[in-house]
Amino acid sequence: MSLICKHIEALAGYVPGEQPNFPGMVKLNTNENPYPPSPKVGEALAGVDWQALRLYPDPVCHAAREEIARIHGCSPEQVFVGNGSDEVLALFTRAFVEVGGTVGYFEPTYSLYSVLTAIRDAQPKPLPLNADFTCPEVPSDWADVFVWTNPNAPTSRLAEPEEIGAFAKRFRGVLLVDEAYADFAPRNCMALATAPENTNTLVMRTLSKSFSLAGIRFGYCVGPKPLIEALYKIKDSYNMDRVTQAIGLAALQDLPYMRANVEKILRTRARLAEVLTARGWQVVPSATNFLFAAPPPPVEAAALFEALRARHLFVRYFPGEKTGRFLRMTIGTEAQTDALLAALADLGA
Amino acid sequence: MSLICKHIEALAGYVPGEQPNFPGMVKLNTNENPYPPSPKVGEALAGVDWQALRLYPDPVCHAAREEIARIHGCSPEQVFVGNGSDEVLALFTRAFVEVGGTVGYFEPTYSLYSVLTAIRDAQPKPLPLNADFTCPEVPSDWADVFVWTNPNAPTSRLAEPEEIGAFAKRFRGVLLVDEAYADFAPRNCMALATAPENTNTLVMRTLSKSFSLAGIRFGYCVGPKPLIEALYKIKDSYNMDRVTQAIGLAALQDLPYMRANVEKILRTRARLAEVLTARGWQVVPSATNFLFAAPPPPVEAAALFEALRARHLFVRYFPGEKTGRFLRMTIGTEAQTDALLAALADLGA
Repeated sequence: MSLICKHIEALAGYVPGEQPNFPGMVKLNTNENPYPPSPKVGEALAGVDWQALRLYPDPVCHAAREEIARIHGCSPEQVFVGNGSDEVLALFTRAFVEVGGTVGYFEPTYSLYSVLTAIRDAQPKPLPLNADFTCPEVPSDWADVFVWTNPNAPTSRLAEPEEIGAFAKRFRGVLLVDEAYADFAPRNCMALATAPENTNTLVMRTLSKSFSLAGIRFGYCVGPKPLIEALYKIKDSYNMDRVTQAIGLAALQDLPYMRANVEKILRTRARLAEVLTARGWQVVPSATNFLFAAPPPPVEAAALFEALRARHLFVRYFPGEKTGRFLRMTIGTEAQTDALLAALADLGA
Repeated sequence: MSLICKHIEALAGYVPGEQPNFPGMVKLNTNENPYPPSPKVGEALAGVDWQALRLYPDPVCHAAREEIARIHGCSPEQVFVGNGSDEVLALFTRAFVEVGGTVGYFEPTYSLYSVLTAIRDAQPKPLPLNADFTCPEVPSDWADVFVWTNPNAPTSRLAEPEEIGAFAKRFRGVLLVDEAYADFAPRNCMALATAPENTNTLVMRTLSKSFSLAGIRFGYCVGPKPLIEALYKIKDSYNMDRVTQAIGLAALQDLPYMRANVEKILRTRARLAEVLTARGWQVVPSATNFLFAAPPPPVEAAALFEALRARHLFVRYFPGEKTGRFLRMTIGTEAQTDALLAALADLGA
């Protein structure tokens, strides 16, 4: 008899994007921000009293939750803070889906959802996106819970908050809107989470992308108190360490810096999209810090991915019928974008 | 219909030890180390490049695992590193216990196990300790998995590694030996985890106590590769942040500092035990950084706890038939111990 749970033994596990480490490489494969976090983060880090690390952290992140509540106009009791949005997602599947229940999401989307569904020993219910990566209408009884990634990854497209709000109203389970990339989008769903009549919708954010803090683990979600309380019940007792709490708070207190960074990235995104379009690429309209784009025939995405890789220029490729024509390219600095465009031109794309 | 899983809705949730914050308080209630971590930790923290926090951390903690493997004489593939041993414990219940399965542990012990069992929707199988807090023989078929806290909390007693090893041999499920306090004990079970013939035993450690790093979250367990792999499959993709990885590694690289701190604490523990015994207390033999001790009648532990609390002197009290006569007192500095002893004398204990 195996010592390991059957459904875990059968599991492949999530494969995070490659973390290559070559001098001079151009790393545009995991949607990291090309610019550093706010200098306030540097100050907060320098201000951490290392001797005080002997003491446990605040188990429920009061200071950061108050700041998040202030930003979104809700109460701290409506905010859950997790060790990356990974933790928030994992807790979501454990709090709101019974074993054997169903988890809905679009396809293609962030591949972690299917892994978390399998870990929970629940059933995945992927709903195919339309051919242009817009969202089909989701049947009200599609699944017990639904994760709506907006803007979506790896497709970069935004669904309108009205559409998601209408679904939230008719859906009887918990809806989690994963807004990892929302700061790069013109509109978002936070108002659905903070609305007084909301009983079933959580909106999740992360500091990994727009706040340039993938290296600490800080994600959060906002929603109705009873759902937030359920997440607090089942989280690890001290899930957020002292340093992360201090750094996360400092970043959240400097929204103007984050927004200026985002503006720079949006300008670069527009330039990259324009040049690729002019070269014959099919560029999906992006509301994120990456482009999902297909090179012009006869250039093949898979071959292009490998050729870029050989030059230590890393982007992401997702094989498969719907995604296999495309590359996902994180928006880098202007210089990285120049290097990418030059390499592509050199490779006939 | 509720949106929250039934067994989660029914759950009370783990209550971490109180984190009071009064100027001049004496905080001996959560087994924190009274001494700061190694100065190497300060250097490592100062050496963190805050600009590089824009990048994801190493998802599988290579450097720290290599150091841990070196310390215990095993391979890095036999080491799992988690966001505090809380995370390791939570993953343990999800990887090795089926829903509806049984989790064995002694009683009294660390109260988190029963909470994690309930979160997993599994069945708790507490086995009462003997009246003197030694361990009874555990029946081979007691539960699907067993958590053996050694030394135990809150009782502070050590069970002999031979006894635990004999149980591991006849037990058919996964045995986790929670050695949070092992650095304060004369003997430990790590050799059970690293033995080539071991197939079912994990030994868990934390940097929270002996390494003075409760403020970061760094726990690990050592054991057979297949079990370690199962934990890696189901952990959050980036569970350990960059700063924690750097700090944890620095602490692990300075064992002499940790050991010198432990020696100081053991000397204070011996003094406190001696004075209390002389005053008529019943002091359980401790292999940890705390004492579990009952004041001499007619002094009552509960009343003493409250009286100490009123003086901003915080210890821990566990009501209940087996524990209600005792206080759990973390070993503090010499000065804190003087303050504790003076206050106790003042209160007739």
